[in-house]
Amino acid sequence: MADVESIYQRLIAEIKQIALLGSCASVLGWDKQTYMPKGGAGHRAEQLALLVGMIHERATAPQIGDYLTEIENSDLVSDPYSEAAVNVRELRRDYDRAIKLPRSLVEELARVATIAQQVWREAREKSDYALFQPHLTKILDLKHQEVCALNTGETPYDTLLDDYEPGETTENLTRVFSGLRDELVELVGAIAESGKKPDENILTRTYPINQQEEFGKTAAAQIGFNFDNGRLDITTHPFCSGIGPGDTRLTTRYNTHHFSESFFSIMHEAGHGIYDQGLNDEYYGTPMGSSISLGIHESQSRMWENFVGRSEAFWTHFFPKVQAAFPDALSDVSERDFYAAINTVAPSFIRVEADEATYNLHIMLRFELEQALIDGGLKAEDIPGVWNETFEKYLGITPPDDTQGCLQDIHWSGGGIGYFPTYALGNLYAAQFFEQARQDVGDLDAQFAEGVFEPLKNWLTEKIYSQGQRYRANELIEVVTGKPLSHEPLMRHLRAKYEPLYGI
Amino acid sequence: MADVESIYQRLIAEIKQIALLGSCASVLGWDKQTYMPKGGAGHRAEQLALLVGMIHERATAPQIGDYLTEIENSDLVSDPYSEAAVNVRELRRDYDRAIKLPRSLVEELARVATIAQQVWREAREKSDYALFQPHLTKILDLKHQEVCALNTGETPYDTLLDDYEPGETTENLTRVFSGLRDELVELVGAIAESGKKPDENILTRTYPINQQEEFGKTAAAQIGFNFDNGRLDITTHPFCSGIGPGDTRLTTRYNTHHFSESFFSIMHEAGHGIYDQGLNDEYYGTPMGSSISLGIHESQSRMWENFVGRSEAFWTHFFPKVQAAFPDALSDVSERDFYAAINTVAPSFIRVEADEATYNLHIMLRFELEQALIDGGLKAEDIPGVWNETFEKYLGITPPDDTQGCLQDIHWSGGGIGYFPTYALGNLYAAQFFEQARQDVGDLDAQFAEGVFEPLKNWLTEKIYSQGQRYRANELIEVVTGKPLSHEPLMRHLRAKYEPLYGI
Repeated sequence: MADVESIYQRLIAEIKQIALLGSCASVLGWDKQTYMPKGGAGHRAEQLALLVGMIHERATAPQIGDYLTEIENSDLVSDPYSEAAVNVRELRRDYDRAIKLPRSLVEELARVATIAQQVWREAREKSDYALFQPHLTKILDLKHQEVCALNTGETPYDTLLDDYEPGETTENLTRVFSGLRDELVELVGAIAESGKKPDENILTRTYPINQQEEFGKTAAAQIGFNFDNGRLDITTHPFCSGIGPGDTRLTTRYNTHHFSESFFSIMHEAGHGIYDQGLNDEYYGTPMGSSISLGIHESQSRMWENFVGRSEAFWTHFFPKVQAAFPDALSDVSERDFYAAINTVAPSFIRVEADEATYNLHIMLRFELEQALIDGGLKAEDIPGVWNETFEKYLGITPPDDTQGCLQDIHWSGGGIGYFPTYALGNLYAAQFFEQARQDVGDLDAQFAEGVFEPLKNWLTEKIYSQGQRYRANELIEVVTGKPLSHEPLMRHLRAKYEPLYGI
Repeated sequence: MADVESIYQRLIAEIKQIALLGSCASVLGWDKQTYMPKGGAGHRAEQLALLVGMIHERATAPQIGDYLTEIENSDLVSDPYSEAAVNVRELRRDYDRAIKLPRSLVEELARVATIAQQVWREAREKSDYALFQPHLTKILDLKHQEVCALNTGETPYDTLLDDYEPGETTENLTRVFSGLRDELVELVGAIAESGKKPDENILTRTYPINQQEEFGKTAAAQIGFNFDNGRLDITTHPFCSGIGPGDTRLTTRYNTHHFSESFFSIMHEAGHGIYDQGLNDEYYGTPMGSSISLGIHESQSRMWENFVGRSEAFWTHFFPKVQAAFPDALSDVSERDFYAAINTVAPSFIRVEADEATYNLHIMLRFELEQALIDGGLKAEDIPGVWNETFEKYLGITPPDDTQGCLQDIHWSGGGIGYFPTYALGNLYAAQFFEQARQDVGDLDAQFAEGVFEPLKNWLTEKIYSQGQRYRANELIEVVTGKPLSHEPLMRHLRAKYEPLYGI
């Protein structure tokens, strides 16, 4: 036993070093999206390719496979939910995937993606898809190579999905999404027929950016994001980067005439950040100190953004404060009208600005396109046309240009294909967790109305954040809520919110 | 020959990879001083220790020594100023130094310095030297270990000096500095006796920070710093970080009631940045694409800050602009009074704010203390007392607290001991280069007065920046000016400026 224990310690030490090297790449990645000068893109691509290549080399060293085999055949992992068993289970998964990927492919993807993101940024500004298209073609080619090398799923797209949401399949997603879609379409239809239209214009009055930043930071801090161990910066496409213990970074973008855009993206990213800050630092760098999946991560951003940040109780506390922060915009607005405005349901072009109901339709569009790109032979040059057609089909409106259409998201430019579905999963997980929290924590609405968010954060920390990867996503939802994932909690949440607002 | 050529190519490829890894550490170092949240210091220390350790391991691989030996014994290096010969000469120097340093010491220094800088920042804010002292003691202990391991100089302090200024010695510095000191003391005395006192108060009126930033950036861009390939950020102790091709970063700090503090630090760092941006990108990562020494680097920051930025001709062009940028502060001020104010000579506490004449006395103080710390048994706990005594002796005034005394500089907290003398060398080199530029480039003053700085920048790029490490500092000054380093050009510059200003 002593021998296996020391092999385990050696394995963990090496895994932690690899994670530390990965966190250096995280700093460079964050900088690339926030402060890097334009001219630095080429050099940054070289830097990231080098780091990613070194990480890949260490992560695929035969020694790690040997360590894993020795430990797997020992008593150390007899309890499947022990620290050692969990770490070994997930490291085995990572290792088996990693050794299938040639280093040259990993480096090439990093290099191509860095340049592609830079070009995407320019293309998005100019609404010039043709500028970006050859880069996306390169990325798709590399992703096809990745699929061939990994080949873990039933279909090529399943192989990509599995990277972000271990065990998830196209078939299962199609089933869950279609269950959700029927009820969603009914609800969105009823909202449209209600004839009620909240006055959204109050949100596009003048909101000075300095005050937006200050108010956003105040709210993020109050729900539980620790700014001694984090920051908030400006970027094109908001994200959260958990660099390591004591260093978690949020980003947003500001628009003087759009209150929701930055405020809810700050709440969203703060939700991600609160998850990262709630991980167990002692286990840093190992699966036991890591988040579970993108879907579970997104459930936290969505929970803090929507289930908390767009709730009536939240604004009972914060409305006087937002009014004081933006007197010119809000002094003649009632709390009720403000609450109705931030919960307007209406088809719109930009995913990250979409309301809670139509948001999932944005995802289904991307899910369909990605499948066609990977499994169905759709070419990069055909994306704008297919995007606009499908958008019209799903949301009844057509994007006026590609900036508001297929160029709006950063994901594909960075090689993130199979990523979008995790956003819809996040909504589903969030709803189911939140229903359980209401049962376990007491009257959340009464707490929010007092500006108190710690009981919810503590519950989430205990049940989810501190558990690392002890459970896979599907298991966790059962462990925490006693039931498998269902679309019903999300529909209950949406009905409970929108039926009274729209008099349905 | 073909064989040696391919060995040389392999050597260069490996050296470039090591430089690329080093540039990742540069990004982390820049971030540490600009945006890293407080809580991230511990993790950052681990990251930097890992990178520095990996770099050290690769830089000291026996293979590099073998490559060097093979090439040194070939015809490839027969012309001592050829690309290959220069690279091999300098790589040999680096390699021989590096193999003497144990990896554990290199990693420990990186780790201790990261924490120490964080503590220094707090100590400086609180003027609490006791907080910082144990960290400095640790650093001094590690530097003593470094000296024992390297042992390249006549004295322990020479060994440290040689790290920043190859070939420089305590003895030589003492000689040059004392030659300078006699004439300086005479000039500073004459200035004091002149009874003339420019109205410095005009510089401590209200200068809004946004306008300071804008004006500083405009000036930096106009003298030749390329902001497409660089940026300007805020930090505690201004520095310039040349991360790699296309990415050079300046930093400054702002004080609403102190125009000179940020403006001249921006000019200073822009000078460093112009050097870095002028390096030959084709040779990136090798000695032929690197700057020569800290002294030569500082000659460029000093030249652009003082010889250009504090010249009368510069303000012929920029005074109407600075007046327009700060109408509240400057509308009633004449160009002549402004020029006199920014060239006030008077003893002051903060080195980076000192005038061109007294600045060198700040360096002599540090030079003396560092020698005592390394060679003379002075203990960290005795620094504040000795600092204040020596300060009184050199400048006739005593710092009111340690923030304005021994806690003002970041260098020691980062392990930079032996670094300060290069600042005075920078002044001496700058003066001698500038005198030569006046002869070679034509009427610089007439050009500056028109806002034209490109001829000077092009001359410097040709003579210095693009040459990389083809020549050592001592050689370069002779190649460019035809004479060895002398303190006379600096004294001529100071007299030419101050005698008319002070009616001497």
